[in-house]
Amino acid sequence: MHNCEIICVGTELLLGDILNTNVRFLSKELAAMGIAVLHQSVIGDNSERLANELRAALSRSDIVITSGGLGPTPDDLTKEVCCEVMGFELAQDDSVLEDIKSFFNKKGICMAGSNNKQAFVPVGGTVFRNANGTAPGAAMEKDGKCLVLLPGPPRELEPMFIKQVKPFLKKYSSGVIISHTVRTMGIGESAMAELVGDLLDNQNPTVAPYAKDGEALLRITAAAVDEESANELCLPMLDEIKSRLGSYVYGVDADSIQQRVVELLSQKGKKIALAESCTGGYIAKRITDIPGSSAVFGCGFVTYSIEAKNKIIGVCAETLEKYGAVSEQTAGEMARGAREAGNADIGIGVTGIAGPESDSSNLPAGLIYIALADKDRTFVDKLITGRSNDREYNRYVASSYALNMARLYLEGFLGGLYG
Amino acid sequence: MHNCEIICVGTELLLGDILNTNVRFLSKELAAMGIAVLHQSVIGDNSERLANELRAALSRSDIVITSGGLGPTPDDLTKEVCCEVMGFELAQDDSVLEDIKSFFNKKGICMAGSNNKQAFVPVGGTVFRNANGTAPGAAMEKDGKCLVLLPGPPRELEPMFIKQVKPFLKKYSSGVIISHTVRTMGIGESAMAELVGDLLDNQNPTVAPYAKDGEALLRITAAAVDEESANELCLPMLDEIKSRLGSYVYGVDADSIQQRVVELLSQKGKKIALAESCTGGYIAKRITDIPGSSAVFGCGFVTYSIEAKNKIIGVCAETLEKYGAVSEQTAGEMARGAREAGNADIGIGVTGIAGPESDSSNLPAGLIYIALADKDRTFVDKLITGRSNDREYNRYVASSYALNMARLYLEGFLGGLYG
Repeated sequence: MHNCEIICVGTELLLGDILNTNVRFLSKELAAMGIAVLHQSVIGDNSERLANELRAALSRSDIVITSGGLGPTPDDLTKEVCCEVMGFELAQDDSVLEDIKSFFNKKGICMAGSNNKQAFVPVGGTVFRNANGTAPGAAMEKDGKCLVLLPGPPRELEPMFIKQVKPFLKKYSSGVIISHTVRTMGIGESAMAELVGDLLDNQNPTVAPYAKDGEALLRITAAAVDEESANELCLPMLDEIKSRLGSYVYGVDADSIQQRVVELLSQKGKKIALAESCTGGYIAKRITDIPGSSAVFGCGFVTYSIEAKNKIIGVCAETLEKYGAVSEQTAGEMARGAREAGNADIGIGVTGIAGPESDSSNLPAGLIYIALADKDRTFVDKLITGRSNDREYNRYVASSYALNMARLYLEGFLGGLYG
Repeated sequence: MHNCEIICVGTELLLGDILNTNVRFLSKELAAMGIAVLHQSVIGDNSERLANELRAALSRSDIVITSGGLGPTPDDLTKEVCCEVMGFELAQDDSVLEDIKSFFNKKGICMAGSNNKQAFVPVGGTVFRNANGTAPGAAMEKDGKCLVLLPGPPRELEPMFIKQVKPFLKKYSSGVIISHTVRTMGIGESAMAELVGDLLDNQNPTVAPYAKDGEALLRITAAAVDEESANELCLPMLDEIKSRLGSYVYGVDADSIQQRVVELLSQKGKKIALAESCTGGYIAKRITDIPGSSAVFGCGFVTYSIEAKNKIIGVCAETLEKYGAVSEQTAGEMARGAREAGNADIGIGVTGIAGPESDSSNLPAGLIYIALADKDRTFVDKLITGRSNDREYNRYVASSYALNMARLYLEGFLGGLYG
C-alpha cells in the first residue's frame, strides 16, 4: 500500500484564522482510494521551512500533496520550492496562460502582470488546469516519489482533485478502504468497548470505538481490492456487533438520531408532539432539521415558565405545586399534555435544570426528566448528565435522550428496557 | 518571541473523519498571546511516528503542544511516548484518580478498570485537572523546552487551555495582541467594507472585515506591550467604526444576537413569545441557549402544520386559505397570536420555505416572512436568503433575522428603519 502525506501551506492556517477543510477533504478521498495518509502538516509562507518539510516528507512517503501557495503574490512560493527540492525546471505554458487570460476576460477585467508567474509549470511534470481560478495544479514524479501541488481555495482544489488528480493517482491506489459507523445511544464509550472488547484486536476489518457529542460510536474499516470485497469483509462484523449491542444501536452509517426518528415515524404513520422546558426548542429544532419532517411533526410547545406549563399544555397546578416543575410527575403530564394539545400519537415532555447554575428549586444542574406518552401509557426516565456547568451539553444530551426514547418506543423496545 | 508547534494525535484526523478544530483554536489563542506557531502536524495513533515527530518538533521549537491520545484504551499512547521522549517517569496521582472516580460517580456509573491509566501523570511535571472529562492534561519542562499534553475532545481541551494552560504559558508570552470584533446584522460584507474602506489600510490597530454565518464582522487588532496599551490603541478605532455603521452594529465582542436580545429584554423588563413555522424551534433554542433567559421568555409555539397555526395560536382559517401559510398576513397573525397566547409584551412570527425543495405552494425555498407585534403595531418583513437549497442556512439566517428584528425594536430603531 502506498503512503502519502499532505502539506498545507499558509500563514492564515498557522494563525488559526481559518479551519483547514482541505486536509480533511484530501484525507477522506485518499483513504477511500486505498492510499494511507500517515502525516498531515501545515507550514507558513516560508521557503526554508517548506523545503525542510518537503524533504522530510519525501524521505518517508511515496506521495506528497501540497495545497496553497500557488497565488500571484511574492509570498506564494510553493511551486518554486517544490521544483527546487524535486530538481525540476519551471517554464511558461502557453495554454495555461490562455486559461488565466480568459478567466479574467470572462469577468471583464484585464490580467494583472503578476498573474504571469502562475502560467509557469514544471517541465516534464503533469499539469492540472484550473477551471475555477487562476493557479494550475501540477505533479512531478522522480525516483519513485510523486509530488502533487494543488491550489489553496477549496472551490478550486476540490473539483481539480476529483476530476484530474484522482484519475492521475489511480496507479498508486491499492484497492479501496471502506468504513462503516455503528451509532449507539444509551451506552458509554468504555461500556461499549467492553461488550465488543475482543473485536477491537481484529485486523481486517478493524474495529475502533470513539465518542462524539455524547454518543458512543464504532468504526468498522476494511481494505480490499474493490468495494464489493471490502463490504463482504465488513458485513459479518457488522452483524456480530449489532447482535452484541442490541437496542443500543440506532443505526449504521445513519446521519443522526433525529433522522432515524423521523424515518421510523414515517414508516409507522405516527405523529409526534413535544413539550419542552429545559431543552427550550432544541428537540423541535433537531426534528425540523430533517426535510420532510412536517409529515410526522405538527407542533411543539416550548413551555419554559410554570404558567405556560399549566395554561398551555394543562399540567395540573397541584402537580407543579406538590412535586415541582422539575419532577417525574410534571414530565409525565407534559408528555400527555403535548400529545393532546398537539393532536398527536406520541407526546414527549422534557423538564430539568440546564445549568450552569441551579434555580430556586436547588436541584442540581444536569438533572433532567424525560417522558413519553402514548394513548395508554406514560414512560418517564431520569437523566443525570454529570456535567452540571455545561448548559449546551446538558441541553444537547437531554434532547438526544428524548429522541432516543422515541426511537426505542417506535422500535418496540420501550417497556422492555425502560418500563 | 518564543515559537511553538502543535501536534494533534488521532487516526480519525488522518482518515478525514473529523475537522481539526483544536488546531485552529490553539493557534488563535497562542497568536493572541504573542507566541508564534510555526508548524502544525497530525500523526496517527502510532508510537514510533509520534516519537519521531516529537523529537523533530522539540529540536526546532521552544514549546510543543499535543492534543489527543490521552484516553483509556490501549491505542491511546501520547502520554507514554511524550514521557519517554522527554525522559519523565509516570506515576499515579491520587487526586486525579479521585477526579475520575467522581466523574463517573456523578453519572451513577462505576469507573472501568481501563480508566486507571488516565490517573498516571509525569513525575515532576505540571498537571492540568480535567473538569469535563477523565483525561488530565500535563506539562513537562526540561532543557529550555516545554511539552504540553492536552485531551482531544474540544469540550475538554478548550476550557483546560483557557483556565489552566494559558496562565501557565504566560512566562513564554512576548507582549499581547488584542482583538475586538464589531458584530453587525442587516448589512453585507462588501457594503460594510465600503462604509469603512479607508480604515482597512490602518496599521496598528488593523481592521479586517469578514463574514460568518450570514453576519458581517469587523476585527480590530492591536499589538502592544500590555493589554491596557493595546486597548488604548483600539478604542478610538472602535468609536469611529460604531459611528459609521450605526444601527447595523448589535455589539462589540458580543457573544451572539440572542445574547443581546435577552440583555435588552431584561433591561426593559419585557417578555417575548414566539410562533415558529419554518424555523421549527430554532429561535426558541437560541434564546434559551442564554442562561437566565427564563426571566424574559415564558413560552414558544412551534406551529409547523396549518392546523397548529389555526388551533394553537389562532391564525384565521380565512387568512390561511386566502393568503397561504407562507405569507405576510399569516406571519403577522402568528406574531399577534404568539403574543396573546404566550401572554407576552412582544410576539414574533416566522413562516417560510426552509428548503431544500419547495412545498405544494410552489413558493421558492429561501422565502421567509418575519413579523413582530406589540400591543399596538405589527411589523412584517420579507427575507429572501438567496440559497434556496440550503435548509440549515435558511433556518439559521431566518432565526437571526427575527432576533435582529427584536433587537432593533427594543433599541427603538424599528418603525424608523423598517416601519
